[in-house]
Amino acid sequence: MAETQSIGAFLDDLASERSTPGGGGAAAISGAMGAALVSMVCNLTIGKPKYVEVEAELKEVLAESERLRAELTTAIGDDVKAFDAVMGAYGLPKGETDDEKAARTAKIQAALKEATDVPLECARLCAEVVKLSKVVAHKGNLNVVSDAGVAVQSAYAGLMSAALNVRVNAKSIKDRDFAEERLAELEELLSEARSETKLIYGVVKDKLG
Amino acid sequence: MAETQSIGAFLDDLASERSTPGGGGAAAISGAMGAALVSMVCNLTIGKPKYVEVEAELKEVLAESERLRAELTTAIGDDVKAFDAVMGAYGLPKGETDDEKAARTAKIQAALKEATDVPLECARLCAEVVKLSKVVAHKGNLNVVSDAGVAVQSAYAGLMSAALNVRVNAKSIKDRDFAEERLAELEELLSEARSETKLIYGVVKDKLG
Repeated sequence: MAETQSIGAFLDDLASERSTPGGGGAAAISGAMGAALVSMVCNLTIGKPKYVEVEAELKEVLAESERLRAELTTAIGDDVKAFDAVMGAYGLPKGETDDEKAARTAKIQAALKEATDVPLECARLCAEVVKLSKVVAHKGNLNVVSDAGVAVQSAYAGLMSAALNVRVNAKSIKDRDFAEERLAELEELLSEARSETKLIYGVVKDKLG
Repeated sequence: MAETQSIGAFLDDLASERSTPGGGGAAAISGAMGAALVSMVCNLTIGKPKYVEVEAELKEVLAESERLRAELTTAIGDDVKAFDAVMGAYGLPKGETDDEKAARTAKIQAALKEATDVPLECARLCAEVVKLSKVVAHKGNLNVVSDAGVAVQSAYAGLMSAALNVRVNAKSIKDRDFAEERLAELEELLSEARSETKLIYGVVKDKLG
């Protein structure tokens, strides 16, 4: 359970010469911080008489952001597992017979597919956090609008970071249909989130005056 | 000591209806993750025969990234202190006499200056991490170049996030020379980091093929 580790110990492990945790774990934490900040803005808006008109909508946003936070927190550890599975498969004995060689290749390819889908799922979750940030930037308590801006920036960083891990694994996948399908979805997520993030950050900056 | 808290507990606190930790703490963690990933790439490059030519330079980068990581880790808690000081000053009795009123105003203004300088320092540190990411993206071990990309993206998110906290506090400062000087420095940091981040991320993406 990656989330039980202290922040300092996680940063020590991240900085170390071990390959995990790496950028994939950092991506998930960025996304989870974004989701947490969306929740914070909701929690500081719901129940305030001034914001009664948006209360029902922000309660729905809060339920979503808390679900995303839970999934992104789990994703911190998933990245390590997926990476270790790839390394484990590459480390298998190369095999003598064609059958043994083919079995090793199949295991490597299966691990690479998983190691592509895990960061792609992280990217999807981060993209959803970007969308929720938009609601809280527009409708949340003005006193904490800067936190909505940090939310979108963190979620976007998580998405851009996860994207690199999708690419690095997808390029070694022999099933090109599988790989190209994932890369196409990734491009769509990135393209939409890029323009949304710029707009949302701009809204927050304007509201700060 | 914010860094002794578990990742899960920090995220819970971030999401809660309490005002701290907030976006400022998330900004510092983003920066610290960026610095840690620069260190990781250095640690996985130094000592490898293939990279002997860049070893001396990456040892210097590593010393710098570890210094920045330590400072950014400390900055997680500094943000809470600065915010609490502002809230504490606003919460002081309004005072009866002009002297009492002036004393309260002076305390608020001093706290606001500190709450502007704290995220500005975080922004400076994140901007330094962006610069170090450039070196590791170009010269670090190719096997972990994606981590250099996550490093720059995390550091840039930390800078963009800290920037919002500089703005939110600077706007309430009556000493406009003080505020404008900080905002001008911030604009410079942002403008340089924005183009650098785009370039560095592009280099990483190209290297991933």
